[in-house]
Amino acid sequence: MQKTILDLVIEKKAAADKAIEFIESGMIVGLGTGSTVKFFIESLAEKIRDGLIIKTVSTSNATGALSKSLGIEVVELNAVEKIDVTIDGADEVDSQLNGIKGGGGALLYEKIVSSASQKNIWIIDSSKFVKQLGNFPLPVEVVPFGSNHTFTKLVQLGYSPKFRMEDNKNFISDGGHNIIDLKLNKIVYPLKINNELQLIPGVVETGLFLNICDIVIIGRGKECDVIESERLKTD
Amino acid sequence: MQKTILDLVIEKKAAADKAIEFIESGMIVGLGTGSTVKFFIESLAEKIRDGLIIKTVSTSNATGALSKSLGIEVVELNAVEKIDVTIDGADEVDSQLNGIKGGGGALLYEKIVSSASQKNIWIIDSSKFVKQLGNFPLPVEVVPFGSNHTFTKLVQLGYSPKFRMEDNKNFISDGGHNIIDLKLNKIVYPLKINNELQLIPGVVETGLFLNICDIVIIGRGKECDVIESERLKTD
Repeated sequence: MQKTILDLVIEKKAAADKAIEFIESGMIVGLGTGSTVKFFIESLAEKIRDGLIIKTVSTSNATGALSKSLGIEVVELNAVEKIDVTIDGADEVDSQLNGIKGGGGALLYEKIVSSASQKNIWIIDSSKFVKQLGNFPLPVEVVPFGSNHTFTKLVQLGYSPKFRMEDNKNFISDGGHNIIDLKLNKIVYPLKINNELQLIPGVVETGLFLNICDIVIIGRGKECDVIESERLKTD
Repeated sequence: MQKTILDLVIEKKAAADKAIEFIESGMIVGLGTGSTVKFFIESLAEKIRDGLIIKTVSTSNATGALSKSLGIEVVELNAVEKIDVTIDGADEVDSQLNGIKGGGGALLYEKIVSSASQKNIWIIDSSKFVKQLGNFPLPVEVVPFGSNHTFTKLVQLGYSPKFRMEDNKNFISDGGHNIIDLKLNKIVYPLKINNELQLIPGVVETGLFLNICDIVIIGRGKECDVIESERLKTD
C-alpha cells in the first residue's frame, strides 16, 4: 500500500528522534539540511533545554539560522578540529549505504562536513531506501563561470542534465555555485560515474555520497530500522 | 649557463609573438593569465589596430581588464558556443605536453576555458620546459568552507600543503575560493595524483593540466621551438 505524505512525515520524525540517542554531552555535532533534519534539530533543542551540552556545525545557512533561532550553539567548521557525529538526511540510500544527496542544494557543504566527521548517521523515511540509486536526479554543483559549457559536456556524456532554477534564474548554492541535476534513472557503477563527473572542469562536487554513511536510520511507521555499514562492522 | 631574468623575458616575448601566427580574423580567442600572456595580449592589440577582427574570452579579471584597456573586445564564456583557440602560459610543461598551471591563481577559469577550446596553445620561456613535473608547487583550488579540514586531508595524504597567502590572509581566487600549494618535488603519476585530489571534498580544481595542451611554443633566445602534442598528430 502506497504510504501517504503524512505517513512519511511520521517516519521522518521517528528516525530523527531515534538519532537523538547517538548524541552525548561534550560532542561537536554536524547538522545536515532538509525536512528530516529539521525534526532532529527541534528534538535536539529540547534536549539542550533539558541539560545536554553540545556545539554544532551547520551544512547550510538555513540550518544555521534554524539552529540559532532554537538556542543551539553554532560554530564554524574551520574553528573545530573534528566533528564527532553528523546527522543528515538523504534523497536515496541503497543497501550498501551509498546515497544521493543534494535535493535541497546543500551537497557541497554536506560532503565537506561529512568528510570531517568521525561518524555519519543518515535519517530517512522508508521511501528513500531503494534497491538501486538513480531514480532521484543526481545533483552536480558547478562553477557559474562557463557553466553552459559544463552543461554541454554533460549532454555529450549522456547525462541528461537540467539546470536547477529558482525564481527563473539559475539556483545559487550557499557556496555561490549553480546546480545541474542529472536524470540517470539507474546508477549501476556509482564510483565510476562520480569519478567521471569530478574530472570535468567546472564541476565542484557531486551528490553521490559513497562510503560515507556509517549508520542509516529508516523510519517504518512509528518504529525505526537501524542499519550499520558493513565497513563499520569490519572496523 | 644559467639564463638571466632578462633572457627569460625575451624568450617569453618571442613565444608570445610566435603565437600570434595562429590567430585569424573571425576567431574567438581564449586568453590565459600571467606574465607571458601579457606580451601576447599586447601584440594582439597591435594586430587588432592593424585590422584583425576577433573576440576574446578571459580567464581572469586581470586579463579581462588588461584586454579592455588595450581596446580588445571581451565576451563572456557563457555567451559563446566554443572557443577556436586559447593562448595561455604554464608554470611547468613536460615533453608529453602535460603541465602545472595556477602560479598566478587563475587555474580554475583557465581549465574551464581550455576545456571549451578547440585548440590550446601554451607559450613559455625555456626554463618552464622540464623533464618531470613537480618542482613547481602544485596549486589546488579549494572551497573556503572547511578549508582547514581539506588542508589536514592533504597533510595526511603526504602532499606537504601550504595555504597561499595575500596580505596576511588566505588568497582568494576570482571564483571566490582559496588556493593550497603542494610541494611535491616530482610527480611520477600525474593522472593518479589528479584523480586522488579531485575526489577530496572541498577540492574544486587542481593545477595539473593533463592531455589539454595541443601545441607548446618555447622561447629559446630570440627563436622558438614549436612542439605538437602526439595526441594531435594521431588525430
